[in-house]
Amino acid sequence: MTLHTGRHFLQIPGPTNIPDRVLRAMDMPGMDHRSAEFAELGFAVMAASQRIFRTKQPVMIYPSSGTGAWEAAIVNTLSPGDKVLMAETGQFAVLWLGIAEKFKLDVDFLPGDWRRGADVEQIEARLAADRAHCIKAVMVVHNETSTGCVTPPLEVRKALDRTQHPALLMVDTISGLASQEYEHDAWGIDVSVGGSQKALMLPPGLGFNAVSEKALAIAKANPSMRSYWDWQEVIAFNKVGTWPYTPAVNLLYGLKEAIAMLEEEGLDNVFARHKRLSAATRAAVKAWGLETQCQDPHAHSPGLTGVVMPEGHDADNFRKVVLDNFDMSLGTGLNKIKGKAFRIAHIGHFNDLMLMGTLSGIEMGLDLAKVPHHSGGVLAAMEVLKGRGVVPMSKSKTAVA
Amino acid sequence: MTLHTGRHFLQIPGPTNIPDRVLRAMDMPGMDHRSAEFAELGFAVMAASQRIFRTKQPVMIYPSSGTGAWEAAIVNTLSPGDKVLMAETGQFAVLWLGIAEKFKLDVDFLPGDWRRGADVEQIEARLAADRAHCIKAVMVVHNETSTGCVTPPLEVRKALDRTQHPALLMVDTISGLASQEYEHDAWGIDVSVGGSQKALMLPPGLGFNAVSEKALAIAKANPSMRSYWDWQEVIAFNKVGTWPYTPAVNLLYGLKEAIAMLEEEGLDNVFARHKRLSAATRAAVKAWGLETQCQDPHAHSPGLTGVVMPEGHDADNFRKVVLDNFDMSLGTGLNKIKGKAFRIAHIGHFNDLMLMGTLSGIEMGLDLAKVPHHSGGVLAAMEVLKGRGVVPMSKSKTAVA
Amino acid sequence: MTLHTGRHFLQIPGPTNIPDRVLRAMDMPGMDHRSAEFAELGFAVMAASQRIFRTKQPVMIYPSSGTGAWEAAIVNTLSPGDKVLMAETGQFAVLWLGIAEKFKLDVDFLPGDWRRGADVEQIEARLAADRAHCIKAVMVVHNETSTGCVTPPLEVRKALDRTQHPALLMVDTISGLASQEYEHDAWGIDVSVGGSQKALMLPPGLGFNAVSEKALAIAKANPSMRSYWDWQEVIAFNKVGTWPYTPAVNLLYGLKEAIAMLEEEGLDNVFARHKRLSAATRAAVKAWGLETQCQDPHAHSPGLTGVVMPEGHDADNFRKVVLDNFDMSLGTGLNKIKGKAFRIAHIGHFNDLMLMGTLSGIEMGLDLAKVPHHSGGVLAAMEVLKGRGVVPMSKSKTAVA
Amino acid sequence: MTLHTGRHFLQIPGPTNIPDRVLRAMDMPGMDHRSAEFAELGFAVMAASQRIFRTKQPVMIYPSSGTGAWEAAIVNTLSPGDKVLMAETGQFAVLWLGIAEKFKLDVDFLPGDWRRGADVEQIEARLAADRAHCIKAVMVVHNETSTGCVTPPLEVRKALDRTQHPALLMVDTISGLASQEYEHDAWGIDVSVGGSQKALMLPPGLGFNAVSEKALAIAKANPSMRSYWDWQEVIAFNKVGTWPYTPAVNLLYGLKEAIAMLEEEGLDNVFARHKRLSAATRAAVKAWGLETQCQDPHAHSPGLTGVVMPEGHDADNFRKVVLDNFDMSLGTGLNKIKGKAFRIAHIGHFNDLMLMGTLSGIEMGLDLAKVPHHSGGVLAAMEVLKGRGVVPMSKSKTAVA
Repeated sequence: MTLHTGRHFLQIPGPTNIPDRVLRAMDMPGMDHRSAEFAELGFAVMAASQRIFRTKQPVMIYPSSGTGAWEAAIVNTLSPGDKVLMAETGQFAVLWLGIAEKFKLDVDFLPGDWRRGADVEQIEARLAADRAHCIKAVMVVHNETSTGCVTPPLEVRKALDRTQHPALLMVDTISGLASQEYEHDAWGIDVSVGGSQKALMLPPGLGFNAVSEKALAIAKANPSMRSYWDWQEVIAFNKVGTWPYTPAVNLLYGLKEAIAMLEEEGLDNVFARHKRLSAATRAAVKAWGLETQCQDPHAHSPGLTGVVMPEGHDADNFRKVVLDNFDMSLGTGLNKIKGKAFRIAHIGHFNDLMLMGTLSGIEMGLDLAKVPHHSGGVLAAMEVLKGRGVVPMSKSKTAVA
Repeated sequence: MTLHTGRHFLQIPGPTNIPDRVLRAMDMPGMDHRSAEFAELGFAVMAASQRIFRTKQPVMIYPSSGTGAWEAAIVNTLSPGDKVLMAETGQFAVLWLGIAEKFKLDVDFLPGDWRRGADVEQIEARLAADRAHCIKAVMVVHNETSTGCVTPPLEVRKALDRTQHPALLMVDTISGLASQEYEHDAWGIDVSVGGSQKALMLPPGLGFNAVSEKALAIAKANPSMRSYWDWQEVIAFNKVGTWPYTPAVNLLYGLKEAIAMLEEEGLDNVFARHKRLSAATRAAVKAWGLETQCQDPHAHSPGLTGVVMPEGHDADNFRKVVLDNFDMSLGTGLNKIKGKAFRIAHIGHFNDLMLMGTLSGIEMGLDLAKVPHHSGGVLAAMEVLKGRGVVPMSKSKTAVA
Repeated sequence: MTLHTGRHFLQIPGPTNIPDRVLRAMDMPGMDHRSAEFAELGFAVMAASQRIFRTKQPVMIYPSSGTGAWEAAIVNTLSPGDKVLMAETGQFAVLWLGIAEKFKLDVDFLPGDWRRGADVEQIEARLAADRAHCIKAVMVVHNETSTGCVTPPLEVRKALDRTQHPALLMVDTISGLASQEYEHDAWGIDVSVGGSQKALMLPPGLGFNAVSEKALAIAKANPSMRSYWDWQEVIAFNKVGTWPYTPAVNLLYGLKEAIAMLEEEGLDNVFARHKRLSAATRAAVKAWGLETQCQDPHAHSPGLTGVVMPEGHDADNFRKVVLDNFDMSLGTGLNKIKGKAFRIAHIGHFNDLMLMGTLSGIEMGLDLAKVPHHSGGVLAAMEVLKGRGVVPMSKSKTAVA
Repeated sequence: MTLHTGRHFLQIPGPTNIPDRVLRAMDMPGMDHRSAEFAELGFAVMAASQRIFRTKQPVMIYPSSGTGAWEAAIVNTLSPGDKVLMAETGQFAVLWLGIAEKFKLDVDFLPGDWRRGADVEQIEARLAADRAHCIKAVMVVHNETSTGCVTPPLEVRKALDRTQHPALLMVDTISGLASQEYEHDAWGIDVSVGGSQKALMLPPGLGFNAVSEKALAIAKANPSMRSYWDWQEVIAFNKVGTWPYTPAVNLLYGLKEAIAMLEEEGLDNVFARHKRLSAATRAAVKAWGLETQCQDPHAHSPGLTGVVMPEGHDADNFRKVVLDNFDMSLGTGLNKIKGKAFRIAHIGHFNDLMLMGTLSGIEMGLDLAKVPHHSGGVLAAMEVLKGRGVVPMSKSKTAVA
């Protein structure tokens, strides 16, 4: 067992730091999942999940990773050969593409450089060109966890509306949900994909699908084979407060407590807190003279910041120096930015001083690893954190236009 | 919140009572699932799972319910139209059938009366008749949780061997594993299906597939669409100590601790303990003048006992009386024995005095609910429990023959 | 570490079974014991303690064992040479006597046979004879944990009143509080002594003194040296929500939760539950043909039952058989009943089925240890437990007279 | 309940941050405190406590605050009228004085300015002048928690030896133990006083007395009235693995785990870690242009740093700004430095990044509270933390001379 002489700093963008209240809520005996007492819990977490997704429609809660919820979105609504439009925002878009391909979808994967959100103008162009409405779904990643770039789902909705295109809008908000504004109903999302281990402050083990009436109707008619992920069964069982299989009881205890905490803080305050922490982090990165992975100033993620390593310096070596010296885990660069970038999470159960510990560890680590940089990132971050009221909320490029 | 003025008696056959040691092992901060520290945990639970299934082959550990592991067994090895042989041992066999049908398998479902294990002679007859080897898999439930009847997998293996039939042998041992002998390799099982919330003493949330070389080879060649459940990916990632998605870190902490407890006790002792508790329970049922759901004396489950209600008495009403008066949850009768039977779990983290509390609650409940019965079941159970050494191990009918 | 293959049955009369809710409330980070947040907790537990003791006067909460609270009662109100009247109800009376002697009190220790409560008539006689009012305090044990005999404090108060004697009335209710009626103010108690590890359902580590105005006035004038136990200091600091030393923060978290649970159940229901469990236990003892340690039918403790072993059989040997075979801890016979009696606790977080497990373990243990007895104690206990409404509340002899 | 949107920073010098491992070890059911299983625990924590105090003599473990252990040291060895020598190092010396006076000792209290350790030369002068050996004990505080100044016990021992004075040497090392070198036997300490809630990383609730043979002999002959604190009784019961009262079982579980963690790290590494964190803190204070409360460069505490507020600025107002803005608790100035100083704890379960979060919160707080200071304290601290090997161990002034 690794010895920790103080708290480990877990600054990867998921699994995130779990509040003691949530851990303790889960640290309880199980219960009869067919009892009235369980049904009360079941209804409570269903309703709470709806409030977090901001929807009146059903929210599926799967005992699964977020990956499972990606698959659920696909197998419920699409069939082999269906054409879909996806955008290469980063590794998680690539992984979702992989699943789409396994289910034999015909994917138009708009290439990207992993340094910005999806190109909504290009999406709109593709939709406009698709007069025959062959495209059955547009699938985007809201908050690309591998890069720290945000794609605004509302802008994609507007593109669909402007082109009067009937494709479903499916959004992975696994690391967006509960760390930044998300409006399943108001933004016209058809399928939202979520997971427990990010801003929901839970251990991994729950996947979510929020749906629209339109998506439900399409799912009903969809002949694709499915069982575990089948929405109809979940919805049918949910009506009596349970699920079509033994639910992950203890994780549901935690889900209830985590959402209670989010609501005690107030979702708007939760979002403002993430933005402030994100702004402070970027101020530090800028002061160090390093580049953020995200190059679009309007697309910075409130939940994590990708940082590009200077040429000739390996990000994973740097991460090891930080781990060995300061007992802090930073996020690795994934796939094509392996070794070239690292990620700082500031998502979930997190606050100003945890961030300052984090940034201090990075600043010291840069020095110990002999990565060229200017000192003073921590000072720059403190400047931001001190001026609480004046941190402007970042707006997406397209939203502003 | 329900107030408990002492410990709730959770005597449903899963989720079962979770040991404090296991709950506390899970009540810990998460960790970087891509770190060396995690890989150490990953390798440890993979190896531990192999020891429990008694196999040298890979064991998939899914963040899922047991239902998911059923689906995994199917989608990895079979394709639409494939013929399989299943046996109606009870509700869980029926549910697995449902999944098979959703994946468009051609199921030969041998009917059963839910009061014994699968009819191995009939299985053998079907296999013998299948000269063309159309049957791709025989799928049986080892310990039928809805009835308390055991089907001995080794006897099915022998039937396959005697008929020299190449069909895969797939066994659901969700509620059998770790409560009674199970030998994945030695018994020639091709796919074993497990879950966390029974004798593994964990919360629900993990599904297992143990496999054979033959099953792996078939899976490699199998064109069926799959992603989440795909063995190849799990095996590839497992080689470096991780999984192809964010694993359920905290449940894995618990899995490690639970298996440590099982091994401290010794698996043979674990099995003997379950048999003793089961024998005592049956002695009580007999003394009450009630019938066990299982009618085959060789097929009684070590983990749970189904009890038939006298004609004219509703099992769920009885269960409610017990819950309201004694804060004990008993298992409901499922599907076609709804209201006609209830189930007593004596599986997992359980001992003699917990059983005596359980049986006392039932005996008092029978009285309060005015169910005709003889008193003295608890006395009969004590007779069994006192004579520890003399409880004979139950043997399966076929094994004896 | 001892391996438990199910829950250990902890049936000693303290420390008792701790509810999961209480354990989890304590399983939290500490806090600044000089903060406003702490003061809120401090005031909450002070007020809650007053409700439990049924007093409007201050309640001292010490980081100590109950022994410490005994000492506190003495050093605050009495001086060397002071005459006090005590009654030998059992080992805890003897231990309190020991402390009184160490502080050089002149103790008139009324002898007893450990099989009934204090002889209130004899107390009254001594008081009546003490025309000079030399006796400064009458000190009795409410619920004698070593025997299971109750002394009704109200009767002692009446004796004081009838003799118009000004002595202080000091009552050890360590194992009485929260398991049976206790009225600090209404019964005219001057000093009540409590502890955390009995019916308060907490770990050991907190001692309590509830006081009267009269006791406070006497304490103010009392020249006895003291510091840690000094009421004045505690009361002064309590006014601002804290204590004159670092308080046992995590135990206070637990105290708050434990009292919340007692109040959710309702104290009257708590008392009725203890009486029912106690009656059932005695029914079992009677059916076994054994004697209870308490011979006064009006003095049976709701919280524990002492049982006399048949001549020639060692109680501790029997307890070992029970521990080794059934993983249950029973209370040992203390001091002069060492080896001659054992104690069954049915106090605190406890319910009918936990009791039935307990009694079953005893009945089986009697058999395995070859202790002469009749079987059927568990049946007799069930008869009592089934008839919830008809269990009459036991009344004290004197109260009836 | 206060909402925490990340971890609260508890930077008061006790209660300190409790490791999850320790909290979870305590979050367990109780056990029979008279069982063999408990005796095993009892012997284990007695032996572990001896290793931490570095003694072969008995160590008393009281269910009490540290205040109780102060009182225990006095009542076991001294009698009313005995002359003792104490040094006013700060508030905790003043509090111990208060207890000594309550027990009517004749205290020669050497005045101090709360900005350095005890004046050992002055102590030696007093001892030399006491030809009649009226002084029965020299009582000093090792690590004065109210100021952050260390008094080296070994130097006091040398002064006693040089003057051939037979007085007992009694040392409060409540906040010194396990954060800096302490050698009960090798340094010739007669009574060491400890507490659980500092570097032992436990909740408050345990007090300790380590003793010498000489102190034990004096205690045996000492007629002072005592019971709860009486060493003889504890030692007698400890021989069979238990205590003369119900021990604080769950805190003992935690003590075992906490000492295991300290020993896994290695006590020398624990001490070096505290020194490094302390040096970094002082570097920050210096860079801010503030003064440490401790003015003797050889006497800085490894466990906490007192900081003097600039004239005209209230320390408690500043602490409130920090608490309100950054959810961090800093230690208040006590007694005569109330409002004039605050304290930063860097003791116990603590590491570099927790310290950086702490110092960042202070630097931002100074700014928000408009306290005159230079920025850059955090940078100065990072310089120290980066250069791990080069931090020299601080030596006491007298030791150097």
